Amino acid sequence: MVTPDTEHAKIIGWVHEVRDLGGLAFFLIRDRTGIIQVTIPKKKASEEVLAAIKGVSRESVVQVTGQVKAMEKAPGGRELLPSSFDVLSRSDSPLPLDVVEKVPADLDTRLDVRFLDARRPRVAAVFEIRSAVLHAVQQFLHKREFTQITTPKIVAAATEGGTELFPIAYFEKEAFLNQSPQLYKQMMMAAGFEKVYEIGPIFRAEEHNTTKHLNEATSIDVEVSFADHYDMMTLLEEMIITTYEHISQTCQDQLANLEIEEFEVPKGPFTRLPYAEAIEIAAKKIDEPIKYGDDLGSAAERAVGEEMGAHYFITDWPSSIRPYYAMPYEDDPSICKAFDLMHPRMELSSGAQRVHQYDLLVSQIIAKGLSPESFEFYLRPFRYGMPPHAGFGVGAERLVMTMLGLQNIREAVLFPRDRHRLVP
Amino acid sequence: MVTPDTEHAKIIGWVHEVRDLGGLAFFLIRDRTGIIQVTIPKKKASEEVLAAIKGVSRESVVQVTGQVKAMEKAPGGRELLPSSFDVLSRSDSPLPLDVVEKVPADLDTRLDVRFLDARRPRVAAVFEIRSAVLHAVQQFLHKREFTQITTPKIVAAATEGGTELFPIAYFEKEAFLNQSPQLYKQMMMAAGFEKVYEIGPIFRAEEHNTTKHLNEATSIDVEVSFADHYDMMTLLEEMIITTYEHISQTCQDQLANLEIEEFEVPKGPFTRLPYAEAIEIAAKKIDEPIKYGDDLGSAAERAVGEEMGAHYFITDWPSSIRPYYAMPYEDDPSICKAFDLMHPRMELSSGAQRVHQYDLLVSQIIAKGLSPESFEFYLRPFRYGMPPHAGFGVGAERLVMTMLGLQNIREAVLFPRDRHRLVP
Repeated sequence: MVTPDTEHAKIIGWVHEVRDLGGLAFFLIRDRTGIIQVTIPKKKASEEVLAAIKGVSRESVVQVTGQVKAMEKAPGGRELLPSSFDVLSRSDSPLPLDVVEKVPADLDTRLDVRFLDARRPRVAAVFEIRSAVLHAVQQFLHKREFTQITTPKIVAAATEGGTELFPIAYFEKEAFLNQSPQLYKQMMMAAGFEKVYEIGPIFRAEEHNTTKHLNEATSIDVEVSFADHYDMMTLLEEMIITTYEHISQTCQDQLANLEIEEFEVPKGPFTRLPYAEAIEIAAKKIDEPIKYGDDLGSAAERAVGEEMGAHYFITDWPSSIRPYYAMPYEDDPSICKAFDLMHPRMELSSGAQRVHQYDLLVSQIIAKGLSPESFEFYLRPFRYGMPPHAGFGVGAERLVMTMLGLQNIREAVLFPRDRHRLVP
Repeated sequence: MVTPDTEHAKIIGWVHEVRDLGGLAFFLIRDRTGIIQVTIPKKKASEEVLAAIKGVSRESVVQVTGQVKAMEKAPGGRELLPSSFDVLSRSDSPLPLDVVEKVPADLDTRLDVRFLDARRPRVAAVFEIRSAVLHAVQQFLHKREFTQITTPKIVAAATEGGTELFPIAYFEKEAFLNQSPQLYKQMMMAAGFEKVYEIGPIFRAEEHNTTKHLNEATSIDVEVSFADHYDMMTLLEEMIITTYEHISQTCQDQLANLEIEEFEVPKGPFTRLPYAEAIEIAAKKIDEPIKYGDDLGSAAERAVGEEMGAHYFITDWPSSIRPYYAMPYEDDPSICKAFDLMHPRMELSSGAQRVHQYDLLVSQIIAKGLSPESFEFYLRPFRYGMPPHAGFGVGAERLVMTMLGLQNIREAVLFPRDRHRLVP
């Protein structure tokens, strides 16, 4: 690591650039903290150093010891004059991707060699911010006394019916990768945990390749007892704003690397737009036919988002297009206590007050054409004292993607999994 | 929620116990924060309250409003005299598990109805402590500037060869559930991240059912560049001690619920016992034949653990019984820079300095009878500048299990997955 403020320093890092001017050779050495220049006046350098620097390729890992001196023209205003120079790991040439970013690469090439791609400061910045986002969420929920839980990813039943599941051979049994911790976090409400969260992988065997879907994603799941959908919208809004504030305060260097000059923290309260009004806005603005009772497709989402111009909630959804576990309004069961949190570009989160009454839940499962028998393990807790509860799930990648203005959701995950990509 | 310090209070919780003495009825109402007594003098109570309390079964969820009064004999020294009493969710009788713990239940019954089991304070305590353990680890690594990463759980290749993997049908391709983030966290070292961690699920299709193995577990994975196995043992030791300290400071109530009167924080430095000496100890103490070059089985682990009496490391393992990615000692390649962190009862963590040299890594993969072609995606980064690095993985369940003296690892996970258990 670069420790430049001592007179005699040892640095280990990647050879970012090499310049050989005959009598003088320059190496820019890069690590996580920045770049330092190693200057080698060939007449003064030792035999060993001169032998070592011969043919050192870019992106090799080297260890250099020597004296640090002020040098105005060098990056960071300092340079290192080496007394030793060792190549720890030599890089092949040519590189499959240019780390210095002179040559723009397409996303597929970048993902094939993510280990090189992520050496670029603007890519590293995305993943440092992603880490800070997860940290901010964990802190936010910890302060509010949430219990961090872990639910199984190998399950016997689908959350919302049998589609879009990856099957697993689990010894003699058929099993699936869980598409959401929904049923498990609700069971924890029955267990009396009152406030739980989980950050973990979810899996969807969605066949369509889009710029905003992944087959393996990270979900931030929250569930709270004795709460309704209004409480959840308030909590979620606070969580989003707090997370943006944390990034704004702690990730200035990373935002600069991403050339985000004005990082805007969303302002609360977020507008709560009833679904019926969202449909009206969409119907006016898009060419496709859309009517009450339809889901909002990408075009409709964009149209409404453009109109709203900031984060907002869509509330009061038709019960017909929400899952069986969403609570219908008592005075009008055709709509339910569900909401989506929207970024102007796309949906970030879905949530709802949940049905906590066994009989109502069974009838809603049947109404969706599903079989209560498949949900026996989930339904059982509702027969032994289930508190009213509500919750939401946030897609971590979409949160990062919209926060940083990334074009493709694959830019927000280190090793994306999609219809065609399973490696690396 | 119980808000007992106001004169007029609203409480929501589970009916923990009911006693009807004719003229007086008592309900103990339980929530996450404790128990409060609701007292109903039948002559003074309203018609509505008297109607509502008729036949209320234990473990139903009720909402009660009324006046809080000091009452010496009641739990917490207070009681609530209700002006309203509503049953929000009625519980069936009999209960499949006694929450009041008068009847001991076997583990299988408990796991079948985890939602009831986890209402018991001693079970809830385990999962609150588990949450605090994960939080302590996250804080510890955050303070040391680690980047929190997410690596894929759906992968194309095994980490350590083809055994013990769950196969997945991933569209047209064959894929597997990842048994460890090992290869991915190493690739992040090639990407220049220097310090990374991940807390996430790992999957092993191990057929044997034991009290210390799970088929789906939670792994705390750490990897650091420019570090060796000694650095990692120091870091891991600090992490374990800090985590114990955090539990000792923040989980007194939970420890009391578990009847752990003296919670001992391990003292550093942990003894570093060379493997050769561990084998000698085991050979003296156990009946089974064991010799240099053998793995330590359960009996050997227990025998050495008994001798050591505290957390310790086993170091300097024969290269033949460690994975291909463990770095051999330069002066004696028959042993390697690998270590295990041991609790007297069992192994908690494995770690090592890793091989960072491409040629050595390829030859070690071949020496283990594996094919370098299967590891192309992993080997490639080693050709473009891989720093020296080291790391470890800790089993979160084993950490909780040994910390709390649990007998079966299934007690440390909400919804365990084993050879026979896939539900709930």
